[in-house]
Amino acid sequence: MDILINKALAGDTRAIARIISLIENDDPVADGILRRIYPLTGKAMVIGITGSPGAGKSTLTDKLIESFRKKGKSVGIIAVDPSSPFSGGAILADRIRMQRHTGDQGVYIRSMGTRGSLGGLSRGTREAVLLLDACGKDVIIIETVGVGQSEVDIIKIADTVCVVLVPGMGDDIQIMKAGIMEIANVFAINKADKPGVDRVAAEVRLMLELVRDKAWTPPVHLTVAENGTGVEEFAESIMKHHEFVKNSPEGTRFEFRRLSSEVEDILLKNLTRKAEKVWQAHKSRELMEDLAARKINPYTVSADILRKLFPRTEDNQGTKEANTSDVTPNN
Amino acid sequence: MDILINKALAGDTRAIARIISLIENDDPVADGILRRIYPLTGKAMVIGITGSPGAGKSTLTDKLIESFRKKGKSVGIIAVDPSSPFSGGAILADRIRMQRHTGDQGVYIRSMGTRGSLGGLSRGTREAVLLLDACGKDVIIIETVGVGQSEVDIIKIADTVCVVLVPGMGDDIQIMKAGIMEIANVFAINKADKPGVDRVAAEVRLMLELVRDKAWTPPVHLTVAENGTGVEEFAESIMKHHEFVKNSPEGTRFEFRRLSSEVEDILLKNLTRKAEKVWQAHKSRELMEDLAARKINPYTVSADILRKLFPRTEDNQGTKEANTSDVTPNN
Repeated sequence: MDILINKALAGDTRAIARIISLIENDDPVADGILRRIYPLTGKAMVIGITGSPGAGKSTLTDKLIESFRKKGKSVGIIAVDPSSPFSGGAILADRIRMQRHTGDQGVYIRSMGTRGSLGGLSRGTREAVLLLDACGKDVIIIETVGVGQSEVDIIKIADTVCVVLVPGMGDDIQIMKAGIMEIANVFAINKADKPGVDRVAAEVRLMLELVRDKAWTPPVHLTVAENGTGVEEFAESIMKHHEFVKNSPEGTRFEFRRLSSEVEDILLKNLTRKAEKVWQAHKSRELMEDLAARKINPYTVSADILRKLFPRTEDNQGTKEANTSDVTPNN
Repeated sequence: MDILINKALAGDTRAIARIISLIENDDPVADGILRRIYPLTGKAMVIGITGSPGAGKSTLTDKLIESFRKKGKSVGIIAVDPSSPFSGGAILADRIRMQRHTGDQGVYIRSMGTRGSLGGLSRGTREAVLLLDACGKDVIIIETVGVGQSEVDIIKIADTVCVVLVPGMGDDIQIMKAGIMEIANVFAINKADKPGVDRVAAEVRLMLELVRDKAWTPPVHLTVAENGTGVEEFAESIMKHHEFVKNSPEGTRFEFRRLSSEVEDILLKNLTRKAEKVWQAHKSRELMEDLAARKINPYTVSADILRKLFPRTEDNQGTKEANTSDVTPNN
């Protein structure tokens, strides 16, 4: 395993890919690897790119790669794909475009499915970012697909969250913005050569008025990713925000919040494994039939399992939830 | 609390709303309530409606409500909204339309945000369904927004999953279908008066050829929710699928799987509460600074907490994950 880690740290693409697969498959050695590389992390600039499907995020990411490469920075990309709950795996046609960078040693691109994820990002996104960081990538871009949970998750991982909007999208998108406004550090209104761009820009600026915090006002860039218009200024804003985060009290708060959620996620992952294991051991055909017949309820079953898990000495902490039927509502 | 439960069971809308709020806020009394009402559940037909933003899911749901009401069935709707990670709450303009049913005692509509959810559905979606079921709603419709995790979650809750597609959507949607094909029991291709409907229908049928299981072939309906075209046939297919689920070995397997994931979710929720408590107690400014300085890593911190959570006697089960750094990869 030392050889694998050392190869990855030396920039060997296949070794990096191999470790990410171990992470994705929840291989028991992955935690050990992450523990080993952890001291080397914390150097990269981590950027999240989010926004609705069809906004041109992949094309914009492609152009960002180009821009950072010109500045002499190495780039890692994690493209989060929606994928099947059963068969897993998905390839987005748009992303094939990015593959033109694969000949470049300074660029590493990895697709990860959302299968089995807690939240909208892939299982292992955070860990893959840590790995690319340790392996010396200067810039790491996480590109997410879709609406919803992934935006909530991305702020836990990325230093700078970029939201990509487009002119002329429907109600769903308008509403989506309400949540997005609060997580966005930099905006790109892409396909800015299409009609309706002024209206979207005005709406974004109006909403920003409402949620603005004093220290950082998210800049709004008009871009046409297809031909590169506005991309350079967009990249500049990202770097400016990164500087801001690193050198302000907000930055420390953000870093603490991120580390705290990192610990929580690792805890949750381990607890999930444990819950699955314990339930599998407890489960029987008979019990399932009793559940189906409503002779017993899943709350009682769960409480029984918890009681087994946590010895009597911790009763006050562990199985408090088990006896609430005679408690009065707290209002 | 008995009064509250009895009122809800008698169909009192405010009591139902109140209990769902207790569930959403993770109030400790919620588990007790669910335990009490659990024996009354298992009667409703639970339908999931999913698909991409802008596909017209809300309008279609609105028309489904109308159809089921005509058949004399009472209906509960849980509309899952994407919401802000910070402020919570979101209202979709389309859904205002559904509000026309609120004068009808046979219809209960509840919006739930995705905030804080494990996965794409709202925290408490499953529990809200149980409550509406116990309160005698004949049909419960869960309408989700967006692409991604919610589809994976919905099959754990709904008897029948309906996927709504529309003509002329981009690459992202085409790919999304790959995952959706495997969870869909009934398809609606909505806005079927728009160009491109034949192409989408043909693509869906082609993909169904590939994943078809023998017992149930998902019907594909062309609908125009705006004017009600095709909605009646769509509703018929949903009821047919429900009959199929209830009267086949697949149905029992499905019910067992659902109950099993119910127990797992409750277990996980309790373990998570416990872990959060322990982490909050363990956390200190000093520890956070050590984490930020990379003097310690979150894996070690997490392992320490797990060791505190699970006593020595269960070492082989509880903290196995804590010592993997000297394990070799398993291939």
